[in-house]
Amino acid sequence: MIAWLQMGWGDLGVFGEPSKETPNLDRMAAEGMLFPNFYSANPLCSPSRAALLTGRLPIRNGFYSTNGHARNAYTPQQIVGGIPKEEILIPEMLKKAGYVSKIIGKWHLGHRPQFLPLQHGFDEWFGAPNCHFGPYSSKEETPNIPVYNNSEMVGRYYEDFMINRKTGESNLTQLYLEEALGYIRRQAASHQRFFMYWAIDSTHAPVYASEKFIGKSQRGRYGDAVMEIDHSVGLILKELQTQGISENTFVFFTSDNGAALMSGPLQAGSNGPFLCGKETTFEGGMREPAIAWWPGHIKAGQVSYQLGSVMDLFTTSLSLAGLQPPTDRELDGLDLTHVLLENRIIERPIFYYRGNEMMAVRMGLYKAHYWTWSNSWEEFKKGIDFCPGQSIPVVTSHTQEEHTQQPIIFHLGRDLGEKYPISVSSAEYQAVLKQISPAVEKHRKELVPGMPQLNMCDLAVMNWAPAGCEKLGKCLKGPETNPWKCEWPH
Amino acid sequence: MIAWLQMGWGDLGVFGEPSKETPNLDRMAAEGMLFPNFYSANPLCSPSRAALLTGRLPIRNGFYSTNGHARNAYTPQQIVGGIPKEEILIPEMLKKAGYVSKIIGKWHLGHRPQFLPLQHGFDEWFGAPNCHFGPYSSKEETPNIPVYNNSEMVGRYYEDFMINRKTGESNLTQLYLEEALGYIRRQAASHQRFFMYWAIDSTHAPVYASEKFIGKSQRGRYGDAVMEIDHSVGLILKELQTQGISENTFVFFTSDNGAALMSGPLQAGSNGPFLCGKETTFEGGMREPAIAWWPGHIKAGQVSYQLGSVMDLFTTSLSLAGLQPPTDRELDGLDLTHVLLENRIIERPIFYYRGNEMMAVRMGLYKAHYWTWSNSWEEFKKGIDFCPGQSIPVVTSHTQEEHTQQPIIFHLGRDLGEKYPISVSSAEYQAVLKQISPAVEKHRKELVPGMPQLNMCDLAVMNWAPAGCEKLGKCLKGPETNPWKCEWPH
Repeated sequence: MIAWLQMGWGDLGVFGEPSKETPNLDRMAAEGMLFPNFYSANPLCSPSRAALLTGRLPIRNGFYSTNGHARNAYTPQQIVGGIPKEEILIPEMLKKAGYVSKIIGKWHLGHRPQFLPLQHGFDEWFGAPNCHFGPYSSKEETPNIPVYNNSEMVGRYYEDFMINRKTGESNLTQLYLEEALGYIRRQAASHQRFFMYWAIDSTHAPVYASEKFIGKSQRGRYGDAVMEIDHSVGLILKELQTQGISENTFVFFTSDNGAALMSGPLQAGSNGPFLCGKETTFEGGMREPAIAWWPGHIKAGQVSYQLGSVMDLFTTSLSLAGLQPPTDRELDGLDLTHVLLENRIIERPIFYYRGNEMMAVRMGLYKAHYWTWSNSWEEFKKGIDFCPGQSIPVVTSHTQEEHTQQPIIFHLGRDLGEKYPISVSSAEYQAVLKQISPAVEKHRKELVPGMPQLNMCDLAVMNWAPAGCEKLGKCLKGPETNPWKCEWPH
Repeated sequence: MIAWLQMGWGDLGVFGEPSKETPNLDRMAAEGMLFPNFYSANPLCSPSRAALLTGRLPIRNGFYSTNGHARNAYTPQQIVGGIPKEEILIPEMLKKAGYVSKIIGKWHLGHRPQFLPLQHGFDEWFGAPNCHFGPYSSKEETPNIPVYNNSEMVGRYYEDFMINRKTGESNLTQLYLEEALGYIRRQAASHQRFFMYWAIDSTHAPVYASEKFIGKSQRGRYGDAVMEIDHSVGLILKELQTQGISENTFVFFTSDNGAALMSGPLQAGSNGPFLCGKETTFEGGMREPAIAWWPGHIKAGQVSYQLGSVMDLFTTSLSLAGLQPPTDRELDGLDLTHVLLENRIIERPIFYYRGNEMMAVRMGLYKAHYWTWSNSWEEFKKGIDFCPGQSIPVVTSHTQEEHTQQPIIFHLGRDLGEKYPISVSSAEYQAVLKQISPAVEKHRKELVPGMPQLNMCDLAVMNWAPAGCEKLGKCLKGPETNPWKCEWPH
């Protein structure tokens, strides 16, 4: 079972959030294994989520764009692409071991019919195909995002599923919680093996929380959402125990990208001591809170120094289910079973991608930046800032900077904030480069990029008339097809 | 018992340091009460330590300078002043309730004979009167810092008590640990009430650790020092339990200022998500890690939202010893007994001073800056940076900026990093100001500053010939007296 959302590294009490308002997640960590060195596969939601479910970097599974160099791309309503049918997702694999699967919440791997969850191994779905940010009324030129129950829509955000943008109130997390608890009860009752992917999104702008959490945190609207998530995770773990299946259920909690600092302060979380946030390949963009919980199997109170990746959840899930990973494709995920059960360490690089470019790599405690870019001058001048209040000479920049011949290297142990580049003339720099370069060379040489899915946009593909819209009278008429190359400003 | 050092808010696992290398301090928190909103009385060591022991702001107890506006001042060897004889220190008070007292480590309240610990209520002392940064040889024009055993010196740093500046090796923390364990054993054996002030300094540049900790942490030299402190605190708590007195001993762990970011990365710690570091009145300069431990009295696993101050340790210590605080002077410390035992909250402002100027005030979750200053252009151009990589328009600056008519206000719950000033035209701003202004007005009106102790410097007052130097052949000859107004660049 995977809980998955947009939350910053520093947002949990156990990762240092001073208000300490996540008692359930903190307890989950105390009863399980904490990963302070766990990474997303991309600083943006869609590619991250694709990587989680396929165990492969977005550059392989197609969740990137070649429309510009090093551009972040995702799946808004006008996107033509989605998860290719050749990709194998966790639920497709688990089916072979007799598992059923449900996704609750945001899908984000393409919203055209062929890309939807039930086409890709999930048996059930309650949630939305795209992000819940705008439009806020279908009277504008774009349709509101539909909410699906399995293969048919049951309404639309801001129409049938309300999010009050002024007060931040919405009962969506409660709905998603009830779905989760109901699903767990049903599977437990029928002794059915299951995979549940709880992909909620209340900490993504527009941030929301249910009535009983509004105004309850010390951290404003974002904190209220975090409190509700924490509360919900507590109830989910409790339900597993009530049903007597906690010792048979592996639960992992993590996030798809760093906190979005550009939406601060009301809609932004904390990346703790790390540099910048969502959209960047600095630590704040990609290092994620991560907790594994499996009473009776994972020893309580452990911390693992393993460099982990969301892609490992693919490989680890298969392993826990007794399955072999597919051998006809490159996988980037590792099997963390021995990490979880014996606290072993597996050496591996972490690659930081932005679109089609490998921006940086981490090995051990060192991180080498081959390309740096915070965001464009154009965007920055409009007030969009992914690193508010942070600026490191030669590191953060509003132009893309190439350092492939002489990467900028940091020691992330003594320099959490990527503030003090190691001197190029030092023996340490030379020694580190000697270690990192062969791994990077090998990766570059052997990489076969997948077909880019996020190149083409078309207003005609929007959620005008999702399956089931007729029954609800919610069908809209879209324009004729008129595709264009998507513009990705970041 | 108070453990007291220079360490950043973010340096402990329990406050979010990703390497999680402080298992003993983290356990101390799990067995006691964690204070994520605890403050130093000053962003610099000497004034902070004076405030801790007197329960009074440095502006009252004299640990400030009027040689310049808002200048940080401390007690280097050339300082003429020190703790005034009119001030009452914790050990002087506790004597009335039958306590004996020992200070182990750095004193920092003036090194001339009349200012030393045994003149101010301590019965024993092992440690140094000043900071252990330079000189590194008495062959230079200044004497090395002496180490005292009670009223006589037993050697000097860098001569008899080594700190290898190249490797960072020194056994000083081990010496200070042995002193602590021995003292505890002796007091326990004689059923003697005691106050121990463990004022170590290995995380202050030049950062040091014992041989067995060198190279052991993931965080470099600073991390090694933190590991050794953690290890030592673990042994101290264990000794209290071994001696059967843990349920009769109140232990508090905190720091005298934020991590010194200007000495980064090798000699600098982490202030977690907070702005800037030591020397500044931003959160990174003054918010401190803080843990209270008292098995059988303080319930395990608690977090207190109390706005605490090191000055509260004065008042709380008296209260726990059954004593009344002095009534002939203003005290800034609060009695936290009910906070500790019942997790109550006492509303109070936190005043952020820099020398003779009140720079900011915190009330509840709001903080209002009346003056801002990071450091001078002159210093900044020399490469001294108290906010490396951080720069907030209108907030951080290299000139002193006055905002007394219209303070810059932050909500520290939703904006940990002091990045998003609340709009002056908002209703929230007006409401907050209305609440804060009367408290600030009252404070300003009623404040009677003490005689500034840190105005005059004189080479003649240095540690040329501390008591006991004859026996060791360690007396040096100083120059004739030639006092001048100290220059405080920060």
